[in-house]
Amino acid sequence: MKFKALVVDIDGTITFKNRRLNLKAAEMLYKLNIDSGIPVVLATGNILCFSQAASKLIGLNGFVIAENGGLVSKGFDTRPYILSNIRECENAFDFLSKYLQITKLDPEYRKTEIALRRDFDFKYARQLVADKYHVDLVDTGYAVHIKNNTMNKGTGLTKISELMGLKPKDFVAMGDSENDLEMIDYSGLGIVVANGDQKTKSIADIVTEAAYGDGVVEALEYLNSNGWEVNPP
Amino acid sequence: MKFKALVVDIDGTITFKNRRLNLKAAEMLYKLNIDSGIPVVLATGNILCFSQAASKLIGLNGFVIAENGGLVSKGFDTRPYILSNIRECENAFDFLSKYLQITKLDPEYRKTEIALRRDFDFKYARQLVADKYHVDLVDTGYAVHIKNNTMNKGTGLTKISELMGLKPKDFVAMGDSENDLEMIDYSGLGIVVANGDQKTKSIADIVTEAAYGDGVVEALEYLNSNGWEVNPP
Repeated sequence: MKFKALVVDIDGTITFKNRRLNLKAAEMLYKLNIDSGIPVVLATGNILCFSQAASKLIGLNGFVIAENGGLVSKGFDTRPYILSNIRECENAFDFLSKYLQITKLDPEYRKTEIALRRDFDFKYARQLVADKYHVDLVDTGYAVHIKNNTMNKGTGLTKISELMGLKPKDFVAMGDSENDLEMIDYSGLGIVVANGDQKTKSIADIVTEAAYGDGVVEALEYLNSNGWEVNPP
Repeated sequence: MKFKALVVDIDGTITFKNRRLNLKAAEMLYKLNIDSGIPVVLATGNILCFSQAASKLIGLNGFVIAENGGLVSKGFDTRPYILSNIRECENAFDFLSKYLQITKLDPEYRKTEIALRRDFDFKYARQLVADKYHVDLVDTGYAVHIKNNTMNKGTGLTKISELMGLKPKDFVAMGDSENDLEMIDYSGLGIVVANGDQKTKSIADIVTEAAYGDGVVEALEYLNSNGWEVNPP
């Protein structure tokens, strides 16, 4: 199958562990977009503003899935599509606050979900909200997110595919963590970098040998050498 | 004189003309910070969120001057210092709107100044507000900014120097456009890249031969080869 586009996570996937951009990966993404005409969508749990900054600095077109699928944008100077709302997440947050000391990250910027500092008992928190609220708690390794359980990067991919006149199966997806799972599942070819978590790796078509951004470089070299025509294993 | 820190503009200075990050410049800034222990402050007319994203993706520490000196931050997970207010800018905007079709950029994110799309008669606008409002209109080549005339990247540099236990004269400053002027003036060594505007070049200690990010690479190579001990010409 010939793939037509790429959707790729930012933190832990095109970066180093400390979130610094892997410059070789950044260059390859830019060239893919410009030279090969394969559009590159960045998909992150981070806020819209961060993801658009990353898209601009890498030299891409502002196609982004932000806040774990809550927001989708198809350019820099356009209004984003808002695909979820924060109310249920706020209810779950208020409830969790009674039992745990939890701290919001970037609350002034987030429109559709809540990010928390990773300094509390995640499993206990997950048990607490289970079946009580229509939310998921997801740990990306950089933050814990409280998000509506009907939205994820996979539903974001479905929306942006539609805006681009494509289908999710036309995409190669690359990621590393739990919040990339549905996006990898919905895509035509799912690639997880070596540092990825076990659950996400288990549904991937390909797991790279290299970790973090070097894993993306490895995957892009493989795809480029096959002209993006690959049969999922 | 031995310089202790670097303050550098983002768009048009460490990027290509299209705002894509110059990856060689990005790598040198990262190494400067990590290997040589010379802190790197990003100074931009852009919003705080964009500048912190750039700092994180380059691998720096979150020292930023945003909104042309209106906001200063000394880390990622800290409250920024707000050094100006937007009221006078809003008054000037309302007045200008009577005469010109002008459009705000990122209004939901800007706290201390207004950025406008560059699609109107800048000189005429500048004449209109002159002596009427305590604002400056500055064209960075990427946006026109309406900002309080008592704040600029130079006053931002004064504040962040103080927070870092340094003086503005301990800094090398690099930039390209009119809104970098005071920062270059207040610094110990002012460097303007070849694409810089004439007025800013005229007060620089050094104008690089190369343009955009390649100019920064040239300047950093020069400084590194001299151990950051340079006598301003």
